[in-house]
Amino acid sequence: MKKWTVILEIFLKEGIFDPQGKTVKDALHNLGFKEVEEVRIGKVLKIDILGENKEEIISKVKKMSEIFLANPVTEDFVIRVEE
Amino acid sequence: MKKWTVILEIFLKEGIFDPQGKTVKDALHNLGFKEVEEVRIGKVLKIDILGENKEEIISKVKKMSEIFLANPVTEDFVIRVEE
Repeated sequence: MKKWTVILEIFLKEGIFDPQGKTVKDALHNLGFKEVEEVRIGKVLKIDILGENKEEIISKVKKMSEIFLANPVTEDFVIRVEE
Repeated sequence: MKKWTVILEIFLKEGIFDPQGKTVKDALHNLGFKEVEEVRIGKVLKIDILGENKEEIISKVKKMSEIFLANPVTEDFVIRVEE
């Protein structure tokens, strides 16, 4: 089996207030980065995983996200396989 | 000026023990995902920012990361501009 590296990004759903992101945006403005319009903060997981092909890997990481890693009520996730 | 979305991923440097990642890996094994070899957990920021071109945007986000968002002693970061 081949080893794959998967990046899984988990953010609060659009429309759910992200106070941590707001705080960072305000701090960036205070530091002079006024061109920043919005900041959202999430978790990112780098997962090394064994598998036969890309489709199998994506399907497994999707399952992990749905049952354990992300909260489907409040969070969205994006899966990216690094080549 | 154009609006850009930048994804900034911040991880502990390779070689620094990541106890949160270890805990998640162990939990995934207990759930049956034995093919997971390693998990590293970090922060991800989605930044909406105004600017003229991609090079300018990357340079600004790099500066923010170095002076404020990441800890250069313990963390590495990756910047990706979404098209």
